[in-house]
Amino acid sequence: MSLIIDCHGHYTTAPKQLEDWRNQQVAGIKDPAKMPKVADLKISDDELRESIANNQLRLMKERGNDMTLFSPRASFMAHHIGDFNVSSTWAAICNELCYRVSKLFPDNFVPVAMLPQSPGVDPKTCIPEMEKCIEEYGAVGINLNPDPSGGHWNSPPLTDRHWYPIYEKMVEYDVPAMIHVSTSCNACFHTTGAHYINADTTAFMQLIQGDLFKDFPQLRFIIPHGGGAVPYHWGRYRGLAQEMKKPLLDTHVMNNVYFDTCVYHQPGIDLLNKVIPVKNVLFASEMIGAVRGIDPQTGNYYDDTKRYIDASTQLSAEDKQAIFEGNTRRVYPRLDARLKSQGK
Amino acid sequence: MSLIIDCHGHYTTAPKQLEDWRNQQVAGIKDPAKMPKVADLKISDDELRESIANNQLRLMKERGNDMTLFSPRASFMAHHIGDFNVSSTWAAICNELCYRVSKLFPDNFVPVAMLPQSPGVDPKTCIPEMEKCIEEYGAVGINLNPDPSGGHWNSPPLTDRHWYPIYEKMVEYDVPAMIHVSTSCNACFHTTGAHYINADTTAFMQLIQGDLFKDFPQLRFIIPHGGGAVPYHWGRYRGLAQEMKKPLLDTHVMNNVYFDTCVYHQPGIDLLNKVIPVKNVLFASEMIGAVRGIDPQTGNYYDDTKRYIDASTQLSAEDKQAIFEGNTRRVYPRLDARLKSQGK
Repeated sequence: MSLIIDCHGHYTTAPKQLEDWRNQQVAGIKDPAKMPKVADLKISDDELRESIANNQLRLMKERGNDMTLFSPRASFMAHHIGDFNVSSTWAAICNELCYRVSKLFPDNFVPVAMLPQSPGVDPKTCIPEMEKCIEEYGAVGINLNPDPSGGHWNSPPLTDRHWYPIYEKMVEYDVPAMIHVSTSCNACFHTTGAHYINADTTAFMQLIQGDLFKDFPQLRFIIPHGGGAVPYHWGRYRGLAQEMKKPLLDTHVMNNVYFDTCVYHQPGIDLLNKVIPVKNVLFASEMIGAVRGIDPQTGNYYDDTKRYIDASTQLSAEDKQAIFEGNTRRVYPRLDARLKSQGK
Repeated sequence: MSLIIDCHGHYTTAPKQLEDWRNQQVAGIKDPAKMPKVADLKISDDELRESIANNQLRLMKERGNDMTLFSPRASFMAHHIGDFNVSSTWAAICNELCYRVSKLFPDNFVPVAMLPQSPGVDPKTCIPEMEKCIEEYGAVGINLNPDPSGGHWNSPPLTDRHWYPIYEKMVEYDVPAMIHVSTSCNACFHTTGAHYINADTTAFMQLIQGDLFKDFPQLRFIIPHGGGAVPYHWGRYRGLAQEMKKPLLDTHVMNNVYFDTCVYHQPGIDLLNKVIPVKNVLFASEMIGAVRGIDPQTGNYYDDTKRYIDASTQLSAEDKQAIFEGNTRRVYPRLDARLKSQGK
């Protein structure tokens, strides 16, 4: 009995109290009298259940997706807001909500943690939240923001030692990171139309330039949104690596880097699967996310990416199984252990 | 007799004196005593001829490309260096060299102008150089840098009135602009592997967000490097436009936006031609540019993009003719007029 596992879902439909609390917190940065307490946020299990059952879970059932790796809403991470304490409180709240969802729907949702990153703050400050989420909440992976400034890109590249504390902890726990930015506060970059995709492309190119996986052979990154521009420009990236006298991408990065399938049309998915080895592709939809509508060309949801994989004529049944389940279990060993303990 | 016109070439092989002069100019920013005079740069016609005949022209002949729209080296524009006067002197020198190349090889090279942009400086300061290049040098288009800061993205989006003086002049002269950034001075962004591609994606998304072509129905932009990530994520962009209640992309932007074919592998070119209408695709290679090597998978140059178009099984002979010649003549009317005057 095979599973369909979506490795990329965010809690975009949390009850409105969450957003209200965050707005209060933001107001509290300027006026400490307005700063809310964590205990001021009250969301009942019924409210959580309803927010999921009517949204993600409903669509998962309609589409035949069994399980989603579920992390806090990416655009709401907004690491650029406030200082480390603000990010820390916010991350704790958001991670706990995803954990509660995973307890309410243990067959369908597995938590992935956001980190309390803050611009200019040492990433090692994120370790306690990461440990808590993995050890206490059962998180099977993390989301790592390569640009906590929100579009100003003033952190070092991902290959810099700046990030090593996170990587050491990832290796220790054997969890992968999805490289995922948050909202853009740069007017040039639309959040989901430019900043997200640019970040994916940027991250992959940083990995080509560096030699990070020599230092961390076990480190694993998922580049979301189908790898940004990378598969479309696969010849460019192979050629640039060649100019730089790097090894072939197969060995230089593709033992450690995976692309998800958040590409919202058939020709894009077909290209992805034409140029990227099956072993490096993980099923995902980022549903309910940036593109919620129905494609008039197909009559189906743009982000119903399972249809594109199902319709692929170049993938074998085994390939599809690897993309839907096997690869994700391999890249997220803690997910695999959890599923095995459930007899799956 | 049909032509193969490459709409995207830069003078990347200029004699070394040019780079030496630029280095002197950069030194002169800090120490005015070192600032060179324009007259200090001496490059003979023979040197120009040699730099072209042994490089671009040799490869053009090998590949069967007849003509290149030729602009100053994009990564050397470096608009972030110095002030407007520095950029202005540098642009004038670079544009004149491309003009001289076009006089030496009138059948093969047609100039496209770089602009003397400078961060924070009103773009209307670029008009005199633009006028000179079009009227005196016969430039048929311009390169417009949406981020003269070189990776900090602190200019307004392309849809902002900030840029309108350039657009008004473009419409007056009926010339298109290629949206092309220069070198990245942000360590996160590799110049040709991230910054170029991100800029293409960013520019297209800005055009979706705005309504620029309502104000300028005749304005035409070429988004280079195959449109960045856009064709690969065509479903995402159609879906985002839909979420924003914009018209269909066909009418909202695709009467004014064109993608070149600087995509360095067959599957990428095939995707481009699958999702983007033939009328919006212009042949280009950006040769000799970022990716100069030979693809071990094919034994051919990565950037020999003519081969990918030739090998396309989805394009008819008429389609290929449109991509190689017809579309470019339509988008660059001054090129068309020039060719007609030569009986082509």
